[in-house]
Amino acid sequence: MFKPPSKLYRKLNSQTSCDIMQVHYSRTYGIHQRSFTSAAINIQRSPSFSKLNSDDIGYFKSMLGDKNVVQDEDRLSAANVDWMRKYKGSSQLLLLPRNTEEVSKILHHCNSRHLAIVPQGGNTGLVGGSVPVYDEVIISLASMDQIISLDKVNGILICEAGCILENLNSFLANEGFIMPLDLGAKGSCQIGGNVSTNAGGLHFIRYGSLHGNILGLEVVLADGTVLDMLGTLRKDNTGYDLKHLFIGSEGSLGIVTKVSILTPPKLLSTNLALLACKDFLSCQKLLLEAKRELGEAISAFEFMDSDAMDMVLAHMDGARNPFPSSSYNFYVLIETTGSDESYDKAKLEAFLLRSMEGGLISDGAIAQDINQASSFWQIREKLMFRKAMCWQGMSEATVKAGAVYKYDLSLPVEKLYDIVEEMRPRLGEKAKVVGYGHLGDGNLHLNIITKQYDNNILAQIEPFVYEWTSTHRGSISAEHGLGLMKADKIHYSKSPETVQLMASIKKLLDPSGILNPYKVLPQSMLQ
Amino acid sequence: MFKPPSKLYRKLNSQTSCDIMQVHYSRTYGIHQRSFTSAAINIQRSPSFSKLNSDDIGYFKSMLGDKNVVQDEDRLSAANVDWMRKYKGSSQLLLLPRNTEEVSKILHHCNSRHLAIVPQGGNTGLVGGSVPVYDEVIISLASMDQIISLDKVNGILICEAGCILENLNSFLANEGFIMPLDLGAKGSCQIGGNVSTNAGGLHFIRYGSLHGNILGLEVVLADGTVLDMLGTLRKDNTGYDLKHLFIGSEGSLGIVTKVSILTPPKLLSTNLALLACKDFLSCQKLLLEAKRELGEAISAFEFMDSDAMDMVLAHMDGARNPFPSSSYNFYVLIETTGSDESYDKAKLEAFLLRSMEGGLISDGAIAQDINQASSFWQIREKLMFRKAMCWQGMSEATVKAGAVYKYDLSLPVEKLYDIVEEMRPRLGEKAKVVGYGHLGDGNLHLNIITKQYDNNILAQIEPFVYEWTSTHRGSISAEHGLGLMKADKIHYSKSPETVQLMASIKKLLDPSGILNPYKVLPQSMLQ
Repeated sequence: MFKPPSKLYRKLNSQTSCDIMQVHYSRTYGIHQRSFTSAAINIQRSPSFSKLNSDDIGYFKSMLGDKNVVQDEDRLSAANVDWMRKYKGSSQLLLLPRNTEEVSKILHHCNSRHLAIVPQGGNTGLVGGSVPVYDEVIISLASMDQIISLDKVNGILICEAGCILENLNSFLANEGFIMPLDLGAKGSCQIGGNVSTNAGGLHFIRYGSLHGNILGLEVVLADGTVLDMLGTLRKDNTGYDLKHLFIGSEGSLGIVTKVSILTPPKLLSTNLALLACKDFLSCQKLLLEAKRELGEAISAFEFMDSDAMDMVLAHMDGARNPFPSSSYNFYVLIETTGSDESYDKAKLEAFLLRSMEGGLISDGAIAQDINQASSFWQIREKLMFRKAMCWQGMSEATVKAGAVYKYDLSLPVEKLYDIVEEMRPRLGEKAKVVGYGHLGDGNLHLNIITKQYDNNILAQIEPFVYEWTSTHRGSISAEHGLGLMKADKIHYSKSPETVQLMASIKKLLDPSGILNPYKVLPQSMLQ
Repeated sequence: MFKPPSKLYRKLNSQTSCDIMQVHYSRTYGIHQRSFTSAAINIQRSPSFSKLNSDDIGYFKSMLGDKNVVQDEDRLSAANVDWMRKYKGSSQLLLLPRNTEEVSKILHHCNSRHLAIVPQGGNTGLVGGSVPVYDEVIISLASMDQIISLDKVNGILICEAGCILENLNSFLANEGFIMPLDLGAKGSCQIGGNVSTNAGGLHFIRYGSLHGNILGLEVVLADGTVLDMLGTLRKDNTGYDLKHLFIGSEGSLGIVTKVSILTPPKLLSTNLALLACKDFLSCQKLLLEAKRELGEAISAFEFMDSDAMDMVLAHMDGARNPFPSSSYNFYVLIETTGSDESYDKAKLEAFLLRSMEGGLISDGAIAQDINQASSFWQIREKLMFRKAMCWQGMSEATVKAGAVYKYDLSLPVEKLYDIVEEMRPRLGEKAKVVGYGHLGDGNLHLNIITKQYDNNILAQIEPFVYEWTSTHRGSISAEHGLGLMKADKIHYSKSPETVQLMASIKKLLDPSGILNPYKVLPQSMLQ
């Protein structure tokens, strides 16, 4: 086998790799005081909704039992605010149904009483979609966390919506499968929320959209009707495939209660390389070459700019530059997954060597198996852990830095970084503009960090960033959804006729508009 | 490299492989006389539809030009009947719009006049979905066959709905991409029809459902509204993803006019093996092992039983058994596609050797590159051609044999062949029951061949086959759709609440019910 130069083989040992990644993802409810921006979104409480009364509470207690009807202020306070602490509601009631029938009864009651509700999974969303805006009843799926079945021949998992993504992945790992999605919030987010927000994440480039992986859903409609679409078949062309309506509709058309999902085999070998590139064009070219040469093996292709890297280094305790001798403009993380360890690794190494010789990468480190006695699985788990923490760390770091304006844009790859470069001179010294994201999917996470939230700065960012994205036929929400934050921005990415049809479908499925109100669609279209 | 025994290496040269595959797919309009079964489906012409008059014809001629308003009997006769010659309508008018605006004007006119229409692509469907039932106006998309753009960085193709699948594949091949679907009818079927029927086909196991590959659509609604959802982004979570409503709804919610599709890179190496197995359990085990060991490289995993093979041999001119020395019970076709020819081939060979040693396969032949000087691309093209013709040949052969009752079932893999074995004693000598299909996707094509169509035989097959499938939580249509044939059978695979919501959505999008009436949903639910 050809031996590449040692430069490419700098070991990503625990000193260099894990130091970057030591901050754990955690909810920060109640730790800091920060201004909330809900008030800045000019929406009035809909007068069509009733207010909770003691009869409602009595009904819920009789049906769910006292302990699943939460009125405790501390618990409500945590559930009323999102992870970023940007959006805060004033709900007085959190319900914890334990099964589909209870969800159905709750919705039937709320619909008949015109009580608005917000479904809540792990509450890890970034657009204010999972918290109340006013006094909506919070329906948490957290108690519905049972794995129902796994078909070990076909890799088809059926589970309740409240299962935490990481728990599902741990369960599957023992059976030789993996979840087809992986994201920073995996330790908290729930599969029902993943489905409802059509979560993307790190392995999208390999396994694609949930629209391709979800085989079936059970959904409770606004009036309490249970829609059993919990199929387990890869192919089923019998009528309209309605499950897709509920994938990505952010709980505004129904509450997902059970999920059937196709899980890929857990392959034996995973390889991970962290690379440095001199410019964005090199990152792009590297992606194109990787698609051609590594093709079916790529499982992640992430990038971050040097400002993003600096942010990690400056704000994460103990983080150190994995390339201490130089500073580079861009960093790329490539993961490959395959079924033949020695071949897969050699293939990645050969590709990286060619890329280095061709000038596409300036430096690089491929993650080695420190302990040669470790099994394939252990290596893979460690690499996954490092990588996930690294990119989780990214979000965590930006949170710590000050106020953060987060944008989640889909753009043609060749245009992807232009918005970062345009935004920098536009905002000048007042803000740090960083870009990172899922380059393989054309998904940029544009983060603008300032000392504190400031409406003048916001006015320089918006609507400019949305208009720019729209001009380049991008999406103003690649994977985060619209939630409350961007409900009235939908027209930047969708045609008027399409939005009109969405509103018609919302009215058809939820005539009283009780499901997650004020989110996804402009309020004006639903009145 | 380890050398497997020569038995495994019997060369599939042109004498053995192509002989099976020499029959070309062609439409057989007007060649044979055969009874039509439309009349057996007890549906009355809806009295809510108007009848065409001279003003309508005049309007269409003024808008489309005389030559695109077809009233010629021969041409109408061809468009009134499906490829299997099972369903025959009596339309008096075929329209050939050249662009979306013309489709919009046609639908606007038809909707206001309550004239029913049937959209028609390549008319290669098998469930009577693409031909009129009564006098519906046929809207053919054949003149809308322009490729609009190809993003060569990301592999995103935009084209009109009337593009023939094989033509798209040929175009893409020159650019280093392939279509993510491949099916027997590729020489005639159109991409708009593929989308509208959510076509599956041979490469589903590798590239998955069109719900995962279609990035955007342009659709014309019943009232002529043009829905521009022609996105080109891999990720776009801005509102409800309505394009999925039109994927697989068989033209009953709107007419697809343009398609944006993610096309995978054309990989350098393709390998194909034809194997013989002693029983169905061995085929199943082989699939499981192949998923584990070949994982990311499998691009097709097809099977056929010995009756299917015999049928091919008996009815296809010049066909010869590729395994002349023995007769086996099952045959499996495995295709792998990868980016490294020598490694990929060695990997498949090693896998087959292990499978033979383990007793999973009884005999096998791996397709060799006859001319070692041929390029990777030529090999791949030839293998694709052979394979496609082989499985096309399957359908062609069954058509030639006599009357064919075709069922397209999705079932859990372990149950997949049981229905074939139950059906044989049930029908006895009167019928030949053969099974083949996409084993990798759990998709069985159950074909029952008799000398002629006979209602007594039909009564022994139906509803038994549907009830059996329903009992095993299968789908009565894996990939063919419901069309006219199975519109009133939908409840075997979908819950009443789900079908009710489908009907509500149909009424919302097409209140007058002019789009492809009598298909997909039970007529009784739409009145």
